[in-house]
Amino acid sequence: MKSADIDAMLAKIAFNAEGLVPVIAQRHDSGEVLMLAWMNRESFVKTMESGQMTYWSRSRKALWRKGETSGHTQALKEMRIDCDGDTLLARVEQTGPACHTGSSNCFFQALNDKK
Amino acid sequence: MKSADIDAMLAKIAFNAEGLVPVIAQRHDSGEVLMLAWMNRESFVKTMESGQMTYWSRSRKALWRKGETSGHTQALKEMRIDCDGDTLLARVEQTGPACHTGSSNCFFQALNDKK
Repeated sequence: MKSADIDAMLAKIAFNAEGLVPVIAQRHDSGEVLMLAWMNRESFVKTMESGQMTYWSRSRKALWRKGETSGHTQALKEMRIDCDGDTLLARVEQTGPACHTGSSNCFFQALNDKK
Repeated sequence: MKSADIDAMLAKIAFNAEGLVPVIAQRHDSGEVLMLAWMNRESFVKTMESGQMTYWSRSRKALWRKGETSGHTQALKEMRIDCDGDTLLARVEQTGPACHTGSSNCFFQALNDKK
């Protein structure tokens, strides 16, 4: 992807006061919501250049290529942005479980259940 | 829902420094991701008491019962929490479009498309 194209995308994103934007990762085929993580400008650029989801770890204050230690990578299929530009929705192909606990996704705990 | 039950849920939520937690709203039947919004403790309590999604509007600094003006309400089906307790996933029944633009969801703009 050309640098100018990535710059044009960056211009549409309303990063917050800390320079971050929340990213919802969703399995592109089943629609399963996997996790929510954060990106700064650099991680967005890395994601677009590599096609591999790369977040900003707020706890480690470092770039975090998803799966870099676990092998449970996320290949980007489609990046969407919401109506006010302050949230991204990444439709991904997930290898293995998305959650570090080994669960398929990070939302394995129900607070209530009124199904 | 009993107040003690809601208190037990609140104790599991890691609100951020501003007292807010991001909430992903997802259509419970199709898996469509509708929007991301924020809750404070009060809006979480209102949501659990009423069964109707009630957010905290960061721009208006006010409680915001989804659909209070548009009629496009969200009935809560199931509230899930992620592995580190700092994001909620609300599975909802959406009446009408979720987005104020009239779109079915807020993520109608693709930044890239590698499908």
